[in-house]
Amino acid sequence: MVNERVLLTSLANLIGKETIADDCAILPLDGTLIVATTDMLHETTDFPAGMTDWQRGWMAVAATLSDIAAMGACPLIVLIAVGLDRPERLRPVMEGAVACCSAHGATLGGGDIDSHKELTLVTTGIGIVNADQVVRRKGSQDGDAICVTGILGGAQAALLGHHQYEPSLFEPHPRIAEGRTISCAGATSMMDISDGLALSLHDLAAVNEVGYAIYSDELPLIPELPPEEARELALFGGGDYELLFTISPDALPLPGLDEYRIGEVIREHRVLLDGKPLPSRGYQHRWRE
Amino acid sequence: MVNERVLLTSLANLIGKETIADDCAILPLDGTLIVATTDMLHETTDFPAGMTDWQRGWMAVAATLSDIAAMGACPLIVLIAVGLDRPERLRPVMEGAVACCSAHGATLGGGDIDSHKELTLVTTGIGIVNADQVVRRKGSQDGDAICVTGILGGAQAALLGHHQYEPSLFEPHPRIAEGRTISCAGATSMMDISDGLALSLHDLAAVNEVGYAIYSDELPLIPELPPEEARELALFGGGDYELLFTISPDALPLPGLDEYRIGEVIREHRVLLDGKPLPSRGYQHRWRE
Repeated sequence: MVNERVLLTSLANLIGKETIADDCAILPLDGTLIVATTDMLHETTDFPAGMTDWQRGWMAVAATLSDIAAMGACPLIVLIAVGLDRPERLRPVMEGAVACCSAHGATLGGGDIDSHKELTLVTTGIGIVNADQVVRRKGSQDGDAICVTGILGGAQAALLGHHQYEPSLFEPHPRIAEGRTISCAGATSMMDISDGLALSLHDLAAVNEVGYAIYSDELPLIPELPPEEARELALFGGGDYELLFTISPDALPLPGLDEYRIGEVIREHRVLLDGKPLPSRGYQHRWRE
Repeated sequence: MVNERVLLTSLANLIGKETIADDCAILPLDGTLIVATTDMLHETTDFPAGMTDWQRGWMAVAATLSDIAAMGACPLIVLIAVGLDRPERLRPVMEGAVACCSAHGATLGGGDIDSHKELTLVTTGIGIVNADQVVRRKGSQDGDAICVTGILGGAQAALLGHHQYEPSLFEPHPRIAEGRTISCAGATSMMDISDGLALSLHDLAAVNEVGYAIYSDELPLIPELPPEEARELALFGGGDYELLFTISPDALPLPGLDEYRIGEVIREHRVLLDGKPLPSRGYQHRWRE
């Protein structure tokens, strides 16, 4: 088995380790930073069963806007490339894409259309942020609080058949406004957790010299499931579009935001749950060799 | 049969007719325009047989940079989403993509990786241009000269088995430097002709109130083929990454550029070859219904 993260690491010498260490590419332009990110989603691997095409269009845009939110940036424009197995799918996909853009202050600026064996959506988002407000993955400080923006595990619960959580899975809301608030409050590092909380903490550890200690009692869990199961989903489930960030405890609570404080940044370079190593597993694309 | 252009037109009321009328989306930012474009290419439909994966990576970037060239813009950053059927294809694809970026002044800024049934490459390019230098499809003036930047039909000739033209097809060079020269010289309208010259002239006609008259004797043809065949390829062949532009005849010849003047903009809203209507056909993606 080879996985996406191993492949990405193998490219570090080709496109630069610094370049692949964030949710977005960053481009300075006169004191403003332009951030840009792209996401590929397609039917077999990425879209859960039971979604409508409208929801697929919405989700494809949400995935990209979430990466922009994770930099503390404002989205401006989204482009979408649509690979279509049947032409009549274009309209509902585009209507969902436009709706998600409109709901989050972005403009759908165009794209490309191609015939394809299976429905494939690739969205690219471009946003801007003042150079002194950008929040990157790198920057966590020993003693910072570790926070998330919402309840964890909903998307994975829906995948497992808990239908009441399908809105989390099918129509996720990228945390654009929350990302701006967190950025303005001086967060030291941030990323989205669409691959799951555990993997995301390990992603932060990969680009910071500090460590991350979280506590299972502090995790914002789904209330309707047994705590044991809910905790597993919160740690290792994928598909939640919440933000994970670190910030000085003095800055908490954040104005207008119901953040959940789940742990603290520690000097030792480890990722710990209740004092024990937290496994680096979660949602990943995999290829068979 | 439904084709890409009909689908695009059907979306005009959804994302705005103005928005889809250029090679790139345009985003104003303090006197500078940011331009952005995305292209989807995949194995079954878009990559000719006989290409290496390195060349597929190169071509995917070239397609996007060509759209940026067509606005008279400078490319800054390219993102690439790679859908892989086999993980070992990633490295040559990325090496080709990086090489094409480097050759044309752009940086490969990141992307996304996904497993996919067939190799699928989606590139997004972001560039900048001064607001007073951007060249759009709309703007042709009655009396302008119609020009192209190079010999036409090479890519299609290679597709038909003329191996000496394979570099045009397999490793096309986007006309970035030429686009800048044309923009600075005051061109009134421009686009790339990757779908073929005839279709591109009709694309210009769709957003301008003037018409376009070209002459078969003026077309820059492949010298090695019989003129009749070479002319057919020049008019209706796809895959050439030359630029088509209109400009006041007083501005010609352009410094440092071997442009070919193939006709003139006319008041009557028609597209003519040697005084007769030029059919609107060329390279298009098609779906069966």
